[in-house]
Amino acid sequence: MGAVQGKFITVEGQDGAGKSTNIEVIESVLTQHSIDYVHTREPGGTELGERLRELLLNDSDAMIGDTAELMIIFAARAQHLDQVIKPALAAGKWVLCDRFTDATYAYQGGGRELDVQTIAALETLVQGTLRPDLTVLLDVPVAVGEQRADNRGEPDRFEQQQQSFKQRVRACYLARASDEPARFRVVDASLALDQVQAQVEQVLVDYIQRVQTG
Amino acid sequence: MGAVQGKFITVEGQDGAGKSTNIEVIESVLTQHSIDYVHTREPGGTELGERLRELLLNDSDAMIGDTAELMIIFAARAQHLDQVIKPALAAGKWVLCDRFTDATYAYQGGGRELDVQTIAALETLVQGTLRPDLTVLLDVPVAVGEQRADNRGEPDRFEQQQQSFKQRVRACYLARASDEPARFRVVDASLALDQVQAQVEQVLVDYIQRVQTG
Repeated sequence: MGAVQGKFITVEGQDGAGKSTNIEVIESVLTQHSIDYVHTREPGGTELGERLRELLLNDSDAMIGDTAELMIIFAARAQHLDQVIKPALAAGKWVLCDRFTDATYAYQGGGRELDVQTIAALETLVQGTLRPDLTVLLDVPVAVGEQRADNRGEPDRFEQQQQSFKQRVRACYLARASDEPARFRVVDASLALDQVQAQVEQVLVDYIQRVQTG
Repeated sequence: MGAVQGKFITVEGQDGAGKSTNIEVIESVLTQHSIDYVHTREPGGTELGERLRELLLNDSDAMIGDTAELMIIFAARAQHLDQVIKPALAAGKWVLCDRFTDATYAYQGGGRELDVQTIAALETLVQGTLRPDLTVLLDVPVAVGEQRADNRGEPDRFEQQQQSFKQRVRACYLARASDEPARFRVVDASLALDQVQAQVEQVLVDYIQRVQTG
């Protein structure tokens, strides 16, 4: 008998929402519950994916068209699924992923206003029916996120976008959360860090309990 | 009034079929007819595309999954269309492209046996209704192509494939030519080079005459 399929958890939110520190909270909850997990990220997560991430994020002379950007994101995702995510889930491990396809809907669909049906078609083509089991959305007003992100180094190609772009990204994330309440947990990440962490911890504890009594 | 849309000519065939030398023949025919054209290639053709080409063709530690490979090819193609092919055609120039989507059907569909409907979906997504106006297929038996390619440097990831892979590539090219006789001209590239070049020249002269007499 094979291992039970692991759970696939994604963390979403704009830069400055506190993804990194809250992912550490999630990791510690998983560890406390003796859950074997893999921590990974998008774009990236594989050697090829990290090279493609470099192309996408770095300010470069190679202006990248919107459709090319979308295809590169899904190319990296296909590799990530094949090499990392699917094998881990099949082995019964949980996967904790820093951004996934919701980010594509938010940044390329919302931010760049690319056709959502194109994104949906690529999602089905690359993922089949695989979707995250739980998505933690760290939501902050754009101005708060920007202020926090400003305290870090050079902004990447997405961080350099206008406020209106970031507003559309946030609106798209919230709309998706609203459309899929069973999968999403929205955390108000504009609160003090300890309060945000407490909420994230509770979301994970509740989810694990639900899975284990499932 | 804008310029008349240019014509889009692609040259297809396996390594060793003589693409480079026959592309020179086509260039000289276009020049003789005072046709302004752009010579480009796939994968590649743009700065981003050439970087993606490097990832695809070079023997590398980053094992590339089949779906990721397919998505990268179409990412490079999207960029190529946006930055090179469509602007040239719109300006009334002709485009002479060393390999295009027929190669994706042949190598990824035929060679790697990826789902053809997936390729067709990506083709529509990235190209819309744009297709080549004329495709010159340089056809050689696999053994002949291999022998000729052997006389050049290190083989790339595709040249290293087994004979059975190359047989499937050839069969797919020929099937596509048979399905679209109005677009394809198949040239027997196993003949002596001067005979092949004479055939390619005739194909182009005939095509230009057909276009110019409308």
